[in-house]
Amino acid sequence: MMIIKEPKELQQELKRRRFEAAKQGRELTVGLVPTMGYLHEGHASLIRKARANDVVVLSIFVNPIQFGPNEDLDRYPRDAARDLALAEKECVDIVFMPEVQHMYPQPTKTKIQVEGLTSSLCGASRPGHFDGVTTVVAKLFHITKPDFAYFGMKDAQQVAVLSQMVADLNMDVQLVPCPIVRESDGMALSSRNVYLNEEQRSQALVLSASLKEAYELVQEQKSTTAAELKKLLTERIEAKPLAEIDYVEVLTFPELEPISEQTRLSDYEGDIIAALAVKFGSTRLIDNMLFQKKDVALHV
Amino acid sequence: MMIIKEPKELQQELKRRRFEAAKQGRELTVGLVPTMGYLHEGHASLIRKARANDVVVLSIFVNPIQFGPNEDLDRYPRDAARDLALAEKECVDIVFMPEVQHMYPQPTKTKIQVEGLTSSLCGASRPGHFDGVTTVVAKLFHITKPDFAYFGMKDAQQVAVLSQMVADLNMDVQLVPCPIVRESDGMALSSRNVYLNEEQRSQALVLSASLKEAYELVQEQKSTTAAELKKLLTERIEAKPLAEIDYVEVLTFPELEPISEQTRLSDYEGDIIAALAVKFGSTRLIDNMLFQKKDVALHV
Repeated sequence: MMIIKEPKELQQELKRRRFEAAKQGRELTVGLVPTMGYLHEGHASLIRKARANDVVVLSIFVNPIQFGPNEDLDRYPRDAARDLALAEKECVDIVFMPEVQHMYPQPTKTKIQVEGLTSSLCGASRPGHFDGVTTVVAKLFHITKPDFAYFGMKDAQQVAVLSQMVADLNMDVQLVPCPIVRESDGMALSSRNVYLNEEQRSQALVLSASLKEAYELVQEQKSTTAAELKKLLTERIEAKPLAEIDYVEVLTFPELEPISEQTRLSDYEGDIIAALAVKFGSTRLIDNMLFQKKDVALHV
Repeated sequence: MMIIKEPKELQQELKRRRFEAAKQGRELTVGLVPTMGYLHEGHASLIRKARANDVVVLSIFVNPIQFGPNEDLDRYPRDAARDLALAEKECVDIVFMPEVQHMYPQPTKTKIQVEGLTSSLCGASRPGHFDGVTTVVAKLFHITKPDFAYFGMKDAQQVAVLSQMVADLNMDVQLVPCPIVRESDGMALSSRNVYLNEEQRSQALVLSASLKEAYELVQEQKSTTAAELKKLLTERIEAKPLAEIDYVEVLTFPELEPISEQTRLSDYEGDIIAALAVKFGSTRLIDNMLFQKKDVALHV
């Protein structure tokens, strides 16, 4: 496993490997798994998907420009040694692990903005967050030129925003959204779960539990409306004294547009997402459930 | 010469050619010349530079998103047949000539913005213009993946802005700024020159003439200040009754930052640009002169 810190070095290394393969008549495919490190089983599931490619590149970079001034950049959990051990175990070929000065040798004057999709959900709570995400992911794409890039559906809005960017800018990469990975009790895996104390973690189970209940309700009662779904989720979460709701939304996916409160979920033709962001103490957790027409909903 | 309209088709064609060359152990280089068509000798000079590459791609696309609502998008001059004849004569390999619906199958939600560099000069006069330029050039880069891309220095601010974008976003392309091409009487070539009537064109010569005078002044009198240069240019242009100044600026290049009025040009360590935008009737012309420390100034 190769560890690279310099963007130019990774760009050159992959160019060299592609050329060598082509000389032998093979088109090398590169799979990129962009992460902020502190890897867990969710990241591991992305890496395993990426193994369908000839070369798996795992990037580990806590991207400062996607954090707001009062967010958790400084205390975001890091453990390079453990991350590298996991990467090795999962057969990653190249770990790209730049420092901030490698990615931003000077403060970036260039930002990529996706309008509309970034104004709701986490975009509303975290102004500028998605500009930081799209900008760093575009950088990673330009450095790595992946054929496929793997993202977890826990950040469903991120998947929607990045898909729009890729389509709008004619980027030659295929995004692969991957299902949320959960603990056995339903808790969605997140590097930020480490912030929670025992009581907070116990109450935070309401996120996955209420989404599961919502999913089952829609399966059983075809007449369930968006408003009823939202009410159910809100009531369940509000019943937990440590929970402070940031948002509970039911939107179309991937457009992230509101649907009328009286719309029955079974009547709507496209996919619908129920998305939650809830604070426990100073820790903000997100989770979501996709209601897909083709019955491939990602079960809790 | 191949003519392609579909972004995906061009992407595939170039990928195929690169792979075929690599199979034979050759690294194919691609040179891109992005234009809005209505080609003139300035564009031809870019194409000739691009011939240093294995494949020359000329793009011809009047990009609607870089025009303001009251600008000349509708009347921008077009002549596809003449453009193709020039391209053929200059040995272009592939002409990429998409329609608006090929480049924007849906209105783009994604914009690339370069801060700072876009707030002065044409960026101040044409709000949103450079967002349109950076966005479409990024699209062209993603479609073509050029090794080198050629731009005329008449749009000096465009060169500065695109260089910043390429560096900030780790784009794997080398920008090649090329000297302004002029008529024998000094007039900088521009597709928009066709808008001028005889009297306007005659008076518009003041742009190149005053820049030449400014250049000679700085050569002769090392003590010339930025303020004196600006005054000279302004007076010469104001002496022409049909001229309406949009801006006359003396700035650092490529940072495009103001320099103090009393700075002697010969004392400043970096490069300096004198840049003009002047309207004649409804036609807005730009021109500029670079004062380079390494004595490779682009003579009028």
